[in-house]
Amino acid sequence: MVDQMGATTPHFGIVTVVGVGLLGGSLGLALKQRGLCTRVRGVGRNTSTLETAQRLGAIDDIHTDLREAARDSDIIVLCTPVVAVNEKLDELRDCIGPDTVVTDVASTKAEICRHAEDTWPLPLRFIGSHPMAGSEKFGPEHATPTLYEGSVTLVARCPDADPGALETVRGLWSAVGSRVVDMDPQIHDALLARTSHIPHIVAACIAELAANAGDVTNVVGNGFRDVTRIAAGRPELWRDICLTNRDAILEGLLRLGERLDEVRRMIANNATHELEDFFKTGEESRREALGEK
Amino acid sequence: MVDQMGATTPHFGIVTVVGVGLLGGSLGLALKQRGLCTRVRGVGRNTSTLETAQRLGAIDDIHTDLREAARDSDIIVLCTPVVAVNEKLDELRDCIGPDTVVTDVASTKAEICRHAEDTWPLPLRFIGSHPMAGSEKFGPEHATPTLYEGSVTLVARCPDADPGALETVRGLWSAVGSRVVDMDPQIHDALLARTSHIPHIVAACIAELAANAGDVTNVVGNGFRDVTRIAAGRPELWRDICLTNRDAILEGLLRLGERLDEVRRMIANNATHELEDFFKTGEESRREALGEK
Repeated sequence: MVDQMGATTPHFGIVTVVGVGLLGGSLGLALKQRGLCTRVRGVGRNTSTLETAQRLGAIDDIHTDLREAARDSDIIVLCTPVVAVNEKLDELRDCIGPDTVVTDVASTKAEICRHAEDTWPLPLRFIGSHPMAGSEKFGPEHATPTLYEGSVTLVARCPDADPGALETVRGLWSAVGSRVVDMDPQIHDALLARTSHIPHIVAACIAELAANAGDVTNVVGNGFRDVTRIAAGRPELWRDICLTNRDAILEGLLRLGERLDEVRRMIANNATHELEDFFKTGEESRREALGEK
Repeated sequence: MVDQMGATTPHFGIVTVVGVGLLGGSLGLALKQRGLCTRVRGVGRNTSTLETAQRLGAIDDIHTDLREAARDSDIIVLCTPVVAVNEKLDELRDCIGPDTVVTDVASTKAEICRHAEDTWPLPLRFIGSHPMAGSEKFGPEHATPTLYEGSVTLVARCPDADPGALETVRGLWSAVGSRVVDMDPQIHDALLARTSHIPHIVAACIAELAANAGDVTNVVGNGFRDVTRIAAGRPELWRDICLTNRDAILEGLLRLGERLDEVRRMIANNATHELEDFFKTGEESRREALGEK
């Protein structure tokens, strides 16, 4: 398709979205509203969720049989919980056409990509994705066609990937407004452990520590609200993320515990300069991590 | 003063603000713009800061000699760094009039209140305050007359306090728009350690942990931004807070370290149910701490 500016609008044919919650539903809405596909098929076990997604315009067709929906799909996007992705990959392996491209949206990538490399034919037509969009809300009723606009999607860089499949997946996320960044799955998980998974664990601990102190309702300010905001997420999701990114999280938690011990010693020893340096480093590190210096 | 509704507007006479930064400057602006005082005297060492505060309308008069400014003041508000408050209390003890009321704005209260009780005549006309307002900005140029509106001010409940002085201090913060909550200074520090001081330390650690992981600029999302926001504060301020609330912070850090060790064991042992419970508790604790359930 060529638009008025002469630029080609990509077209993704039949797109099958497996799991029509916030991420899957928003992808369907974005693809359909932007005219980027022929149809969006929604696959799930819960027909009432699928019906909601259909009513809201996120999907065209309802399927409860993945293999049936997958058969002549051009792209299949697995938007199931992270622990279900490998199982779906097993189901799909032998039933998809030679040109079908498969991706996912899970927050951890190493385990899933390793499973695909170990079990799927090469070159790999499964390309792992992690669109960093979403919120603590979930379900198709919160889906929005603009969810991916301005977000970053990390796309797994695997040596065995089919180059055409990689380009299709990159194009899919770009087309719905996301900036695509390629990343080695191991590095992805190591970095996300420290920028997302461990902060989440810590936010839960901080919330617990405060609630255990007594009635703190009069003393909680914006700082506490900000630090603990991500603790409002979904327990099952975060449990699964911890279990599928075990090594990187354990390593980071160990390091964090050591650093907190060092800070404890600084306070106990009245180490004025060290403490000030510690807070300065925190401030500078934040700017560095956010790319502000 | 009686307003059109027949309600009495309080009047605080001559108010002396020691330290005309964000908190002191905002107090001066609020008092002057609401017509709550005769004059606001600004005291400091840095005349250019005092001149800025005067130019912005936060203070009427500039003083560099605390004892001189204090002499016939009705209220003196110490807005200096927390470690300087005790020293100012020593300076003021013998030079203020019998009706002068003194308060402060420091983030820790037990050490300051104990010092006043140990050294000042009783009943105590120093009443510790902690207005929970402000931001990572500082200096009189960021002062605003609305800073205290909608905030909570924790006022120290000391057995030796002069009841009239206590009422004056409560009235001062109410008059600039803050909700006043009385609190035992020890309990104040114990609760703030867990809702503010430890979260601050942890935010700095999380920022450092992320920056040490490598280039994370592409993977930092809103979660990381929220968790670490308070790490953008002032290093000297937080160093001083740690050193003036040592015991409560050390106790809380120890507990936090133990909890993080427990989470590490859950992840290492694949303890699915325990992990899910941990995240559920975090979510519920946040709601409890924020008074949302």
